[in-house]
Amino acid sequence: MSDVVALVCKIDPEQEAAYLSALAAAMPDETLVRFRDLSPAQRAAAAIAVVANPDPADVAALPNLAWVQSLWAGVERLMAELGAGAPPVVRLVDPELARTMAEAVLAWTYYLQRDMPAYAAQQREETWRQRDYRKPSGMTVGLLGLGALGTVAAERLGQAGFRVLGWSRSAKALPGVETVAGEEGLAAVLGRSDIVVCLLPLTARTRGLLNGARLAAMKPGAALINFARGPIVVARDLLEALDGGRLSHAVLDVFDEEPLPPGSPFWRHPRVTVLPHISAPTDLDTAAAVVAANIRAYRRTGRPPRSVDVARGY
Amino acid sequence: MSDVVALVCKIDPEQEAAYLSALAAAMPDETLVRFRDLSPAQRAAAAIAVVANPDPADVAALPNLAWVQSLWAGVERLMAELGAGAPPVVRLVDPELARTMAEAVLAWTYYLQRDMPAYAAQQREETWRQRDYRKPSGMTVGLLGLGALGTVAAERLGQAGFRVLGWSRSAKALPGVETVAGEEGLAAVLGRSDIVVCLLPLTARTRGLLNGARLAAMKPGAALINFARGPIVVARDLLEALDGGRLSHAVLDVFDEEPLPPGSPFWRHPRVTVLPHISAPTDLDTAAAVVAANIRAYRRTGRPPRSVDVARGY
Ligand SMILES: NC(=O)c1ccc[n+]([C@@H]2O[C@H](COP(=O)([O-])OP(=O)(O)OC[C@H]3O[C@@H](n4cnc5c(N)ncnc54)[C@H](OP(=O)(O)O)[C@@H]3O)[C@@H](O)[C@H]2O)c1
Ligand SMILES: NC(=O)c1ccc[n+]([C@@H]2O[C@H](COP(=O)([O-])OP(=O)(O)OC[C@H]3O[C@@H](n4cnc5c(N)ncnc54)[C@H](OP(=O)(O)O)[C@@H]3O)[C@@H](O)[C@H]2O)c1
Repeated sequence: MSDVVALVCKIDPEQEAAYLSALAAAMPDETLVRFRDLSPAQRAAAAIAVVANPDPADVAALPNLAWVQSLWAGVERLMAELGAGAPPVVRLVDPELARTMAEAVLAWTYYLQRDMPAYAAQQREETWRQRDYRKPSGMTVGLLGLGALGTVAAERLGQAGFRVLGWSRSAKALPGVETVAGEEGLAAVLGRSDIVVCLLPLTARTRGLLNGARLAAMKPGAALINFARGPIVVARDLLEALDGGRLSHAVLDVFDEEPLPPGSPFWRHPRVTVLPHISAPTDLDTAAAVVAANIRAYRRTGRPPRSVDVARGY
Repeated sequence: MSDVVALVCKIDPEQEAAYLSALAAAMPDETLVRFRDLSPAQRAAAAIAVVANPDPADVAALPNLAWVQSLWAGVERLMAELGAGAPPVVRLVDPELARTMAEAVLAWTYYLQRDMPAYAAQQREETWRQRDYRKPSGMTVGLLGLGALGTVAAERLGQAGFRVLGWSRSAKALPGVETVAGEEGLAAVLGRSDIVVCLLPLTARTRGLLNGARLAAMKPGAALINFARGPIVVARDLLEALDGGRLSHAVLDVFDEEPLPPGSPFWRHPRVTVLPHISAPTDLDTAAAVVAANIRAYRRTGRPPRSVDVARGY
């Protein structure tokens, strides 16, 4: 096969080497070549680019791409950078990623339900005080986004005994989960949830969605977990809601700027738990297997896998 | 019915009132009377005492008790205080308590697996660093004790994908759990587990079980969760194992002295999470229902429920 698969990354070299070897192992029949190692003929021949935070100019330098496979689930920045006229982008949909994210949602939901931040504060003050225990069956967890990640998270929370209220763009039916849609549905989730978990993609419609007005509509004392993208929440408004005591706590894995810059008020806020974008890391081996399966299907059928809808933005 | 059920507590009055009303609601056919309200004739007539941290002299002042129902799962101190010749003691075995404890075990297992203590330390230093993610399937959780609480915890950890290795006195078979017994079994659990969870009762044989030698036999970098009783772990030896870096962290819900006294080195140890005995609080309503069912069965059959074996000590 004279065709090659181009690997286009702008990540640290160690990580790139790890990706390269996992992908090569998963697709022994393909010729996988890093962008900088491609010959001019190979650049012209490449029909598929596998990308992780690529330089858009590198992708543009491959004139005959049929499609672009992202190694990440979130492709909002990639799509914006590639711009109109770019080849279709296929994002990573890996069941192992959904499992990992659902685990993170449950782990930090327990963190809040079991009052771990408050007990940590009590320990610092050497205070021995038993706080009221809240049963999962008496708590509502609101999930914003019921896609590849949100549906599995909803199921996991339900199994753990929490009442789950899920919100998506289109109406959905999920066993054991109350689902709502639209602006009215959002108001219900915000008003009724003890913990709101954001697993939405970043699009023109979700950017700034959780602004001052919507945060003020949350149940007093509720908490927020954002595992999706920073700009979905208006940072200043969130800080105000926390300072005013409307929200009891925020667990943030994503930010407007990452790494979170030194001096950001989030670092030192007593009601904020800062995580360095670790809720659901890509598993190299399972991701490589998913990508390899996509490429095999393409070789067989000549049709690229289902790609991200540019109009919807996800 | 001229017989009464005596409620014998030495707890704060609010809690006593809450117990009294939950128990009264659960056993409308019984006459439930607080110890201090009993007439001399009632003291003589009482065949059942329901107790929560009772004054042993009060229990001794009820000469015709057929059995004593504890409102707590752990009865080691109660049995020691009542001494030989006391009526049989029945401890609380409540499925809701087992559920709550299994939830605590999973919640604080996630706390350690997801590196929450390390990320909290990074946040204090404003450090953005992604630590290696450890999958549950690559971690072994060792459970010391496979009784009413340990079996449910083992099941829950298994469902969450952790490898579970359980230790008990007598050999056991549990679906999905590798079980071991005896001193050799203990060595296997300590040597192979990334997290060791203690759910043993405090007996003559378990007091001081986790001493310097046994802690030194733990896997380097492993963590300990003690949700059972403080004296099962030798406090000084644990501090040494943490200081020496052999153990990465300890989550402690129970201590030799509770409340944990001010100035205890546990309070300020960077590798210790102190909890104020909150892992599995009694649920008043379900506990009252269990106690009421025990009393109904006794009224029907004349036989007290299965009691704690004085020789085994649990
Ligand atoms: N922190 C991390 O480590 C990490 C890791 C991976 C992914 N992520 C983030 O997680 C996001 C979600 O991933 P996913 O794979 O679950 O995405 P997905 O499968 O595309 O699902 C997106 C969900 O959001 C809903 N949605 C989109 N726009 C909406 C709107 N305007 N109003 C209401 N609902 C809307 C969709 O509704 P419909 O179902 O009606 O279309 C769908 O349920 C990714 O985009 C990424 O940003 C974060
Ligand atoms: N922190 C909290 O909030 C809280 C709440 C409730 C209870 N607790 C504590 O949890 C403890 C356990 O409760 P449980 O209801 O599960 O007790 P349980 O049903 O009596 O079970 C005890 C388990 O420990 C094992 N065991 C006892 N002595 C042993 C020894 N010398 N060597 C090895 N294994 C031994 C038993 O083995 P066999 O199965 O072979 O007999 C059994 O599996 C209670 O005693 C109490 O101290 C703490």
